[in-house]
Amino acid sequence: MCIVFHTCILFYIQCRYTGYNIYKGKGSIAIKVIPPTWTQQQGTKSYVLSREGGLLFEFAPSTTIREYDWSKKTTFFLSATECGEVLNRGATGCEFLHDPGAQSDSAGQITKKMKWSPTPDQKGIYVGLTVNDKSNPESASQISLPVSWSEFMVIDSLIRFCIPRFLGFDQCFPPPGTVYAGSKDEAVPLPPSAPAYRSLE
Amino acid sequence: MCIVFHTCILFYIQCRYTGYNIYKGKGSIAIKVIPPTWTQQQGTKSYVLSREGGLLFEFAPSTTIREYDWSKKTTFFLSATECGEVLNRGATGCEFLHDPGAQSDSAGQITKKMKWSPTPDQKGIYVGLTVNDKSNPESASQISLPVSWSEFMVIDSLIRFCIPRFLGFDQCFPPPGTVYAGSKDEAVPLPPSAPAYRSLE
Amino acid sequence: MCIVFHTCILFYIQCRYTGYNIYKGKGSIAIKVIPPTWTQQQGTKSYVLSREGGLLFEFAPSTTIREYDWSKKTTFFLSATECGEVLNRGATGCEFLHDPGAQSDSAGQITKKMKWSPTPDQKGIYVGLTVNDKSNPESASQISLPVSWSEFMVIDSLIRFCIPRFLGFDQCFPPPGTVYAGSKDEAVPLPPSAPAYRSLE
Amino acid sequence: MCIVFHTCILFYIQCRYTGYNIYKGKGSIAIKVIPPTWTQQQGTKSYVLSREGGLLFEFAPSTTIREYDWSKKTTFFLSATECGEVLNRGATGCEFLHDPGAQSDSAGQITKKMKWSPTPDQKGIYVGLTVNDKSNPESASQISLPVSWSEFMVIDSLIRFCIPRFLGFDQCFPPPGTVYAGSKDEAVPLPPSAPAYRSLE
Repeated sequence: MCIVFHTCILFYIQCRYTGYNIYKGKGSIAIKVIPPTWTQQQGTKSYVLSREGGLLFEFAPSTTIREYDWSKKTTFFLSATECGEVLNRGATGCEFLHDPGAQSDSAGQITKKMKWSPTPDQKGIYVGLTVNDKSNPESASQISLPVSWSEFMVIDSLIRFCIPRFLGFDQCFPPPGTVYAGSKDEAVPLPPSAPAYRSLE
Repeated sequence: MCIVFHTCILFYIQCRYTGYNIYKGKGSIAIKVIPPTWTQQQGTKSYVLSREGGLLFEFAPSTTIREYDWSKKTTFFLSATECGEVLNRGATGCEFLHDPGAQSDSAGQITKKMKWSPTPDQKGIYVGLTVNDKSNPESASQISLPVSWSEFMVIDSLIRFCIPRFLGFDQCFPPPGTVYAGSKDEAVPLPPSAPAYRSLE
Repeated sequence: MCIVFHTCILFYIQCRYTGYNIYKGKGSIAIKVIPPTWTQQQGTKSYVLSREGGLLFEFAPSTTIREYDWSKKTTFFLSATECGEVLNRGATGCEFLHDPGAQSDSAGQITKKMKWSPTPDQKGIYVGLTVNDKSNPESASQISLPVSWSEFMVIDSLIRFCIPRFLGFDQCFPPPGTVYAGSKDEAVPLPPSAPAYRSLE
Repeated sequence: MCIVFHTCILFYIQCRYTGYNIYKGKGSIAIKVIPPTWTQQQGTKSYVLSREGGLLFEFAPSTTIREYDWSKKTTFFLSATECGEVLNRGATGCEFLHDPGAQSDSAGQITKKMKWSPTPDQKGIYVGLTVNDKSNPESASQISLPVSWSEFMVIDSLIRFCIPRFLGFDQCFPPPGTVYAGSKDEAVPLPPSAPAYRSLE
């Protein structure tokens, strides 16, 4: 998808830190956006999505009332498709299993399991994370926190908002007010290596 | 989340006033956006979400037909999670209790209760607000207005749109057309105090 | 809601024409966006939403196969709340009655009725528009076209996208990448006549 | 819809390549955005949507494990309304039939059929594409891949995001922070050939 537009070319960097924080007695969950990564094709004006975005879940245990020890946090990254599974079965129960060392020498060393299961009183779901490290059994950690249906609806709304953006679909439509220059075929020479999917079916 | 982009740096201020107004015989509700607040970390290009946004509900009693006395308005602020509760149970009934003086000397002085309950004829819901002030019992106020299912669907759509924005998730994705400069690792040095959540799991 | 941001101040006008067109044997429906209108408060940087947006439905009869006579079009404007009614009961049936001359001398002269009702074969809904003019009975027109569930799902998606924008809620959140200047309280003096709803509850 | 705004007029071209990729044993599906095409009306600042956008589905067979032969890909383009059908009946089953040569001399030569049908184990749906070419029967191809409910939820979210954009509705609302100049009636003379749909009903 080639976007032709007029814009201002000035350099600016900024960082944004936010997340959806759920605070409970035994611990806290912070849900954060990992945006997708775009890689520029050398010598072109083309950007290819090289890594999908997703939601990062951080779990911290509580120390005392309303105090959480983020130095002991454990984390779990949900891909776009795994976020789709939360929409589909998060409210009835589902499980995700990750091996951070997959496809490397340390495959199978550390295993991470995230589990979503309804609470017995049906007032929400437990979201839990278990981390096991074979080389260091004492470091194993387990945390499970109750998430209310209100909080689940927030997560649901966040996921629906984020999925298209995790996959870069928001970047495929020119921003409102985009000004086109000349005929598209003239103005936007497709780079040789780019997929020719504009020639539709 | 660090956004690297080219933009124009010129200063401009503008204010926008709008809301969703529901006018009924006994009174009116105005539903307004309170956007989140971002705080810049000193000496950096980092912004941290320091206060979540939410929906402000303003209730005004009517004086005569189609005239409302906004000087007598009472207000109730719904957080993102409370908005999630409206999605979850607004149509079947729910309640929110606020103490504006919480965690201060005036805790418990004023209590505010918002109640959503289906109308007897099932044509919609009553949305009511009760305010009590112990130090000034005469100032107690109570208002409850019928909201039709059509109006409820508007509120539902507004909430789904707003939740990601109340939590600043819209700011975590570079705007369409963002131009990246160089490799990300070079261009975006994380500030020392920033959470290192880009190093994923 | 005051937005403080840096932007480029150059003047540009552009017009966009689009709509969702449903073509049927007996006629065609074109569904178009009417954006809200903002009015600047004199001598300030404040804009107040002075007219809500909505969806304009245009109905044209067919002349021959795949030819439609737009010079004979009749139109119906759905407000944000009426769009909410389409979400709520469009699939099961609902009706809207408009009097274009309401609150003027010509009140009651012309009446317009839009009706949504399921087709007998349950494959979709009829969307119909009846216009009557008491002063010119011969000009009365009636058109009703079958809308498939696929087309209805498109309308549903369009409405959910548009409702927050009809009410100007998209303008209440600073665009991604907005740069704040100084402390908010300093930078954004509320205009005297502006509602003080930032001081929350 | 005329947008009056201040922006920066500098020329810039960029291309974005992304898609939602579903990898299975027998093959892979890549789902890509085709944005709508806008055509400028000569001598005006008006842009008319001249071709709706849609989703392009590309199917590639696998060669060996996790290797796909994209040179043998077959493609299918879903219009906005066909995307609405996926929302409506994709989970229960539906079919789309395309004739790439329709309304030309080669009508009926090539036929393409996309079929969505639940898997026997109810764990998802098969999405299949059959291509037949009468003039070259050996080139006929058939591929059908299982799509999990998680992946279907991603497709559902993508479609709801894309439908308003395929029809250009995102371009009908001024971008947040748009600055208006003078009264609208003065600033935005409608071009003579433009539909007069601002004069509402």
